[in-house]
Amino acid sequence: MKIFIVGLGLIGASYAECLRELGHDVYGHDTDATTMRKATGNGIIKGGTINMMSTCDVVVLALYPEANIKFVKNNLDRFKAGQLLTDVSGVKRTMVAAIESLLPKTVDYVSHHPMAGSENPGFDARDRTLFRGANAIVITTPNTRNDPVDRLKKLLETIGFSTIKEATPERHDAFIALTSQLPHALAMALMKGSDVETLDFAGNSFKDLTRIASINAPMWSELFLSNKEYLIEELHKMSEELLLIAQYLKTDDATALTRYMEASKEKRDVYGNHQD
Amino acid sequence: MKIFIVGLGLIGASYAECLRELGHDVYGHDTDATTMRKATGNGIIKGGTINMMSTCDVVVLALYPEANIKFVKNNLDRFKAGQLLTDVSGVKRTMVAAIESLLPKTVDYVSHHPMAGSENPGFDARDRTLFRGANAIVITTPNTRNDPVDRLKKLLETIGFSTIKEATPERHDAFIALTSQLPHALAMALMKGSDVETLDFAGNSFKDLTRIASINAPMWSELFLSNKEYLIEELHKMSEELLLIAQYLKTDDATALTRYMEASKEKRDVYGNHQD
Repeated sequence: MKIFIVGLGLIGASYAECLRELGHDVYGHDTDATTMRKATGNGIIKGGTINMMSTCDVVVLALYPEANIKFVKNNLDRFKAGQLLTDVSGVKRTMVAAIESLLPKTVDYVSHHPMAGSENPGFDARDRTLFRGANAIVITTPNTRNDPVDRLKKLLETIGFSTIKEATPERHDAFIALTSQLPHALAMALMKGSDVETLDFAGNSFKDLTRIASINAPMWSELFLSNKEYLIEELHKMSEELLLIAQYLKTDDATALTRYMEASKEKRDVYGNHQD
Repeated sequence: MKIFIVGLGLIGASYAECLRELGHDVYGHDTDATTMRKATGNGIIKGGTINMMSTCDVVVLALYPEANIKFVKNNLDRFKAGQLLTDVSGVKRTMVAAIESLLPKTVDYVSHHPMAGSENPGFDARDRTLFRGANAIVITTPNTRNDPVDRLKKLLETIGFSTIKEATPERHDAFIALTSQLPHALAMALMKGSDVETLDFAGNSFKDLTRIASINAPMWSELFLSNKEYLIEELHKMSEELLLIAQYLKTDDATALTRYMEASKEKRDVYGNHQD
């Protein structure tokens, strides 16, 4: 297949390298000239003028959400009927709705979220094994047709994803607020109260917990803000839970505290067993 | 050396097995008859009547904090002059002060905290490699003499601890509230908002983050309550940080949010370099 990747950062470049290894003809574009030189020099992409996009079977948008929308708007005449268009953005509602409203119905747009990443951004951090065994969420809306969903899923399987689930943009964004954005917020908040000595002498769990605090600020700031309704809700819920635990401590309520811990253990252990 | 271990749970039994392998004569006691049968049957301890304690060079208290105090109170006549007495409890202020006030000055009591553990409690979860490369904190108070501190440190080094630091009970407990108890509270609070499906489909970071939510409720409930002043402070600070991030989101303050993220990354990366 001929595949065009827009944006050769961590995810775009990792996709490009994977897909090339799988025997596809991979083209791509990045606004950074150095990245383009490296990508063509390494043979990771065959070439990179945006004009080529309309000759490709699949187009992957791998920019930040706002930039994806802008790119679609500026290149509407370069998409072609029957082409599979997807993106790898971490937040979906606003972006998917905007792109759907821009595109002609003849272009098959199916968004997805590869749930893998690294603290290191950019082309040089690319890793063709990044998606092996990872999860992906494929986004369905009332406009989504089955056939392009199947095409996308097959492509993702060949890249190495082991579990691929479908979700609406709303369900995806609520899920991501809890399982990805909130943990990043917690790690950042933990770092605010810590210093090198703290980390130096903390147990491994604290180091593991704060590893994601080494965050790509421009990207995550946009992701947080574009999912703010759900994330604000999660931040408030978490804040209330912590104050509830503090309240148990203040009132020396060993019974309530133990019950809270037992419920937590029970829930986590169900998953432990479930995983086996 | 003749070493006596009081309490053959996860830590006590792991110490016993380690120390036996190092060639020491290990004795021990547990109130659970099945545990005692297993421990003597496996040859992990040579015997286990509390009377033997007074013939030993080193005594390790490996019960929960309150039980350690009670044990010392009930067995005051079984400690002997020049004996090194230590404990492995996770919270120190109240317990260390209580034990110091009970003991005659001739017994060398130096508390410590082995910073290693497992989600699985009890004798059967013992692991003689648990302490390899781990950190330990040795507790010093105005009553602590240098010689027994050195003896304890040497013993801990032979068990496999790689970094051993000294701290007052206050500094230890403040540090533990931030780096161990708060992360456990966060994991528990995260589980409250999750279900099996959440975990099933979450990225690895969420699974890692919540692993410690599978908590030994009776032990951690006691540890939380006996460190409540510091832990309440950490819970409030964390709660405020989360509400601050929520406030940035509500007001669409991309600048403040990005600055917060950059500060977090900078701090964590300093440690990253420091670690290399």
